Amino acid sequence: MQLTKQTDYAFRLLMYLACLPKDQRANIQQVCTFYDISSNHVAKVVVKLVKLGYITAFRGKGGGLMLARDPARIRLDEVVKDFETSLKPVNCETPMCAIFAGCQLKAILFDGMQQFLSTLSQHTLADITDKRLAQVVKVR
Amino acid sequence: MQLTKQTDYAFRLLMYLACLPKDQRANIQQVCTFYDISSNHVAKVVVKLVKLGYITAFRGKGGGLMLARDPARIRLDEVVKDFETSLKPVNCETPMCAIFAGCQLKAILFDGMQQFLSTLSQHTLADITDKRLAQVVKVR
Repeated sequence: MQLTKQTDYAFRLLMYLACLPKDQRANIQQVCTFYDISSNHVAKVVVKLVKLGYITAFRGKGGGLMLARDPARIRLDEVVKDFETSLKPVNCETPMCAIFAGCQLKAILFDGMQQFLSTLSQHTLADITDKRLAQVVKVR
Repeated sequence: MQLTKQTDYAFRLLMYLACLPKDQRANIQQVCTFYDISSNHVAKVVVKLVKLGYITAFRGKGGGLMLARDPARIRLDEVVKDFETSLKPVNCETPMCAIFAGCQLKAILFDGMQQFLSTLSQHTLADITDKRLAQVVKVR
């Protein structure tokens, strides 16, 4: 039971950008090299992060990516909700499961997922991008 | 963020078998036809369920599958732990993530997963296989 690569990369990108000194921008290649991940996957995530208003992409010379929102206002559960394809732990409806009508398992699994999201909702991007992380990002 | 097909099918199989009248057995084909799922996938799950002691497979005439344990003693989190390939919501170590040392996100995600499992641990197979489910299984 894992988050998709999309969500994973969205978190990595946001954390990287949150660590940059004020007004500094990063380009996709920098982020990909830093994390040693494919630029194809990251490019798609960047497009979505821009579209959803998490980050801004500046074009041309001196361009690059930077956070568009205050990290203290980006709750971790929001990122998961925005990037996961499904938050239903099981797929009961496509195709429809034969026991759907009488099944109580799905409600328990969905309740469990709510607990997962609730844990994340208690933290923001600012909480997880402290000096220690900034140092790791900067050092490399 | 979804459970694997293996875990999903393990639950379906266990729920089906828990609904059978006492001493009745079911064969794989019956279960596959009931749920309209591929017997290839289900066969692998059956092998694992037998190996882990959840069910017993009787061979020959009058053979078939039946629960090997009291459903009231099969906690739902156990099934997830036994069947999921990974319970780490992100893969930080293969390959090693560049921010592993300073990253606080992983601890929050793992805490969230513990909350998910903790919710499931409050329920057993017996809790989710009541008369209503038995009726759905029997009717078809």
